[in-house]
Amino acid sequence: MKSRDKAVNQMIKAAGEREVETVWDRYQTQQPQCGFGELGVCCRNCTQGPCRINPYGDGPDHGVCGANADTIVARNLVRAIAAGAAAHSGHARHLAHALKKGLAGKAPAYGLKDEAKLRALAARVGLDPELPAEELVNKFMDMALEQFAEGEGPLKWAQSFLTGGCGETFERLGTMPTGIDNTIVEMLHRTHLGVDADPVNLLLAGVSCAIADYAGSHLATDLADIMFGTPGPVFSQANMGVMKEKSVNIALHGHNPVLSDIIVQEAREMEEEARGAGAEGINLMGVCCTGNEILMRHGVPALTHSISQEMPMLTGALDAMVVDYQCVYPSLAGVAECTGTKLITTMDMAKISGAVHLGMHEENAAEKAREIISVAIEQFRARQGRPVNIPSVSSKVVAGFSVEAIVQALSKLDAADPLKPVIDSLAAGSLQGVVLLAGCNNVKVPQDDSFLVIARELAARDVLLLATGCGAGAYARHGYLTPEATLEYAGPGLKAVLTAIGEANGLGGPLPLVLHMGSCVDNSRAVDLAVAVADKLGVDLNKLPVVASAPEFKTEKAVSIGTYAMAIGLPVHLGVVPPVLGSRLVTSVLTEGVKDLFGGYFIVETDPYKAAGAIFAAIQERRSGLGLPTREWE
Amino acid sequence: MKSRDKAVNQMIKAAGEREVETVWDRYQTQQPQCGFGELGVCCRNCTQGPCRINPYGDGPDHGVCGANADTIVARNLVRAIAAGAAAHSGHARHLAHALKKGLAGKAPAYGLKDEAKLRALAARVGLDPELPAEELVNKFMDMALEQFAEGEGPLKWAQSFLTGGCGETFERLGTMPTGIDNTIVEMLHRTHLGVDADPVNLLLAGVSCAIADYAGSHLATDLADIMFGTPGPVFSQANMGVMKEKSVNIALHGHNPVLSDIIVQEAREMEEEARGAGAEGINLMGVCCTGNEILMRHGVPALTHSISQEMPMLTGALDAMVVDYQCVYPSLAGVAECTGTKLITTMDMAKISGAVHLGMHEENAAEKAREIISVAIEQFRARQGRPVNIPSVSSKVVAGFSVEAIVQALSKLDAADPLKPVIDSLAAGSLQGVVLLAGCNNVKVPQDDSFLVIARELAARDVLLLATGCGAGAYARHGYLTPEATLEYAGPGLKAVLTAIGEANGLGGPLPLVLHMGSCVDNSRAVDLAVAVADKLGVDLNKLPVVASAPEFKTEKAVSIGTYAMAIGLPVHLGVVPPVLGSRLVTSVLTEGVKDLFGGYFIVETDPYKAAGAIFAAIQERRSGLGLPTREWE
Repeated sequence: MKSRDKAVNQMIKAAGEREVETVWDRYQTQQPQCGFGELGVCCRNCTQGPCRINPYGDGPDHGVCGANADTIVARNLVRAIAAGAAAHSGHARHLAHALKKGLAGKAPAYGLKDEAKLRALAARVGLDPELPAEELVNKFMDMALEQFAEGEGPLKWAQSFLTGGCGETFERLGTMPTGIDNTIVEMLHRTHLGVDADPVNLLLAGVSCAIADYAGSHLATDLADIMFGTPGPVFSQANMGVMKEKSVNIALHGHNPVLSDIIVQEAREMEEEARGAGAEGINLMGVCCTGNEILMRHGVPALTHSISQEMPMLTGALDAMVVDYQCVYPSLAGVAECTGTKLITTMDMAKISGAVHLGMHEENAAEKAREIISVAIEQFRARQGRPVNIPSVSSKVVAGFSVEAIVQALSKLDAADPLKPVIDSLAAGSLQGVVLLAGCNNVKVPQDDSFLVIARELAARDVLLLATGCGAGAYARHGYLTPEATLEYAGPGLKAVLTAIGEANGLGGPLPLVLHMGSCVDNSRAVDLAVAVADKLGVDLNKLPVVASAPEFKTEKAVSIGTYAMAIGLPVHLGVVPPVLGSRLVTSVLTEGVKDLFGGYFIVETDPYKAAGAIFAAIQERRSGLGLPTREWE
Repeated sequence: MKSRDKAVNQMIKAAGEREVETVWDRYQTQQPQCGFGELGVCCRNCTQGPCRINPYGDGPDHGVCGANADTIVARNLVRAIAAGAAAHSGHARHLAHALKKGLAGKAPAYGLKDEAKLRALAARVGLDPELPAEELVNKFMDMALEQFAEGEGPLKWAQSFLTGGCGETFERLGTMPTGIDNTIVEMLHRTHLGVDADPVNLLLAGVSCAIADYAGSHLATDLADIMFGTPGPVFSQANMGVMKEKSVNIALHGHNPVLSDIIVQEAREMEEEARGAGAEGINLMGVCCTGNEILMRHGVPALTHSISQEMPMLTGALDAMVVDYQCVYPSLAGVAECTGTKLITTMDMAKISGAVHLGMHEENAAEKAREIISVAIEQFRARQGRPVNIPSVSSKVVAGFSVEAIVQALSKLDAADPLKPVIDSLAAGSLQGVVLLAGCNNVKVPQDDSFLVIARELAARDVLLLATGCGAGAYARHGYLTPEATLEYAGPGLKAVLTAIGEANGLGGPLPLVLHMGSCVDNSRAVDLAVAVADKLGVDLNKLPVVASAPEFKTEKAVSIGTYAMAIGLPVHLGVVPPVLGSRLVTSVLTEGVKDLFGGYFIVETDPYKAAGAIFAAIQERRSGLGLPTREWE
């Protein structure tokens, strides 16, 4: 089985018929994959290599320089964390540049949209939230940009958005970053030939880098919210059935709302141009986290996610796929060539050979957005008369669960103390715990399968489920972001809680089974929620019955996110084996040793049923630690 | 043949007898090395991999995400450049922190030592060089630290220390960095799954990162000079014969003078303590670029370099090896355990499992230096009565050829216009050109062999030779940094020029055959010299008969240095094949395509005789371009 998604399977069949190569074909062609690489014991950090350690002890046990498996595995892992942190913070940096230029009058598309969020954030980072908006936003942006450079004290965006206990732990262990960029750069330095050769020291530096990733992610969320608005509940649709044969179908793919949000705004103005070309209108849809951003803020339907990103083109109805960056498969260029879709790259730092590049800069964002839409309209014209094959598969979606939206919904139950109903339910056991399901799809796992199994198993046992990124996308495409899913899958306690909230908010039924909190930078939203709960209870995050799970992760970003989730104190389940098994030491530190240092730790389990059991057990351990009633797995 | 160095060969034999594993043994154990990695077509940037491209076209031609060999090779290469830039700039950053704290009264070991150099640098970067020293150094340091963060314009340390033409080219091609750290971080972002998949775009970003590396290297040199003094000619010795059985033998290894310079200073105060332990004194020696730093500034003898770093311990006479970072083999811990040497790590970011860690911080540098020396003295005491096996191999060395020292020496020929004699000789053909020999040793090349062959071949043909890093170390250990070598190997034109300068400076003979310009960050010194010549001639660097060669390179730093040397316009010879052959496109861009963009390009030739020919041909091509008389290879 390649995917649990019927629409995807229909398109895989179409790809086979048209002899279009897909990610699953390439995965097959890559078999067998290199076992050294899979175990993490391959080193290419200097030209005396490549070196590899024999994992059976029956061959080389050191690289040419003398690095052993522990050091090699640790170095590879922490470089991945650094790359993940670079990606998330790069995303934040682009938003910061855009807003900064917008405020200076150089980028008219960008400005302050959500003043309330700005004031709330300002208070958190120690600015006077009562300042006039213009002054405040400028001060805030100066401080935001300072996060990238090395400072003298703890990184403000890490310290301000975590519990005090986390900050103390990080200071004590020397893992509190002093800036985002310098922390990432030092990681590269440390992993150069002949620098750090102490695996535990390397892993601690990796944690520091992951905390910088958290800061960068949080900043990305914060900036997107103040520039484009903080999400609130939206109703939409997901999966390829959202394509419309007679409309100009444009998919927006990647991660950063810096262009896609502008395209959404500009598309409204260009409906007439589309109709002039014979279309019924412009149909925008999202892929991956760019999709999540515009779903959360504008209700733009979600087309597909992660490993199935090639599929929408195979409908023959996709006129343009507009990409920014991260997780955008270079293979899209080849598929687009077969299907006629215009693949449009937009960021100068992320081109794809074979794509049309329309470089977006902050100054010309709206103009470039219109140019892009025009290209899609032209392509709509060109495809007329050709058959389309749109799967009639789509699901209803309720998304938009920012922390602000959740708190707002809860306040209808208890205006004075919105978190109280959740905390009371956790204490009583009607809610057993909270699990954040995050991360990507991975071609090594039948698409969505692990996400769906884990959610069903945990929901039935009264665990509150949050989701972000392509995980949230999986739930979207399978109808799990609906009240109906709650009625179908939630255990009695969870159902009661979600129904109480839903009804208090006039929904006439429960909240969705899974709460969609946003894109992968928006894992910071889930942390914010956990921090709020922890602060209210007066305990640290590493005491809460909260677990993070990345059942189908694939990216370096996910490695970085998983590491910060561990570092702030959460048990973190991984459903794909990370390349660390070549070192017993590293494996044992990550799954056990870190528990004593940070409270969080990794659980690696590829079987989703067993994974659900392990996650539930971790929740019970935490409940027990808090003196709360525990429950057997039944 | 493992090494051309007799002392090294003697120690390799000793290692064999004692069954101590060396770098050469580990290299053998690693055979055969992974061909995919060697060709650059292995990708481990996400957990859908590892992926590899079949170089024969008979197997997978794309990774799971669709990245082809060109993208994979380019991504791997530019990540290496980023790591190199991170290392060099990290070195500069540590110096900056130390001086900044010193100026603030928090780190008494550090302060402004070379005011003249400070004033000269200040003028270059646009500060008023006439300001009072204290004010100037503080302003200078603020500006120095600003280089790491993203700025609004071109990176000052790149722009100010290159020709105007270089700056224009970089601006035009979008390769001028705006800051060191952000440029490195963006490189990691670009190489994350699904970001940049245009190999040429990636390579241009790699150039930008390499220019950031140049800036970081230059800053490292500048700061070391103003803190510890700008080198001038020094006389010393090199190779393991410099060890003294009856002294406390301490090797200082790594790259950064931030601690080693303090150890040199403190050791002078601790002679008595050493004598109290029965020693004749303290014998400090250098390894790798830390060795170059203290050789250049204090005449501390050079013990050995790069791949032979394990050897001095095998004499049984090395009491301590004190390491900072970069190119320090983790294997040293195992060798030290066999030989009793105390291996002491000093930087918190660079520990080695099995070593003694004495963490040096700016605030406690002198105290820590004394503690380290005391440990060595104790070890001297402990080793009494045990046999030693010190090779009686050493060479005389004349080093210390900073640009300032070279100009000073030249001014004895023409005080008004010091560069004129060199330029006239180049024009007339008595000097054919200038070659900078840089980079590491690599276990894949018989140690020093390529360095020595290329130097002899080129010197005989009147090419002026500069050297840095472990390349300079190779020449040091083989007596090439001596007037005698000039008499033995230099062609008539070169001999005449070096003799004229030497005699004008009262040496009674020629300058050394090879001018030792310093450590690997000091490649910036060689660039400064070339810039001075280019500016004087009113041509750009990419017109000069100047070539860089890294005959035995191994590190990511070397990849970064080679790339900036190419980008500023130099032909760059590599004597080890970099992992790019898996992409015809990348290979062809690096060896040909870049020539049209930057003027520089790569020459890959592993045979040192052929390499000398290719370098000479590149010089002739440049001479021809300038309308200067050319010469056949004879």
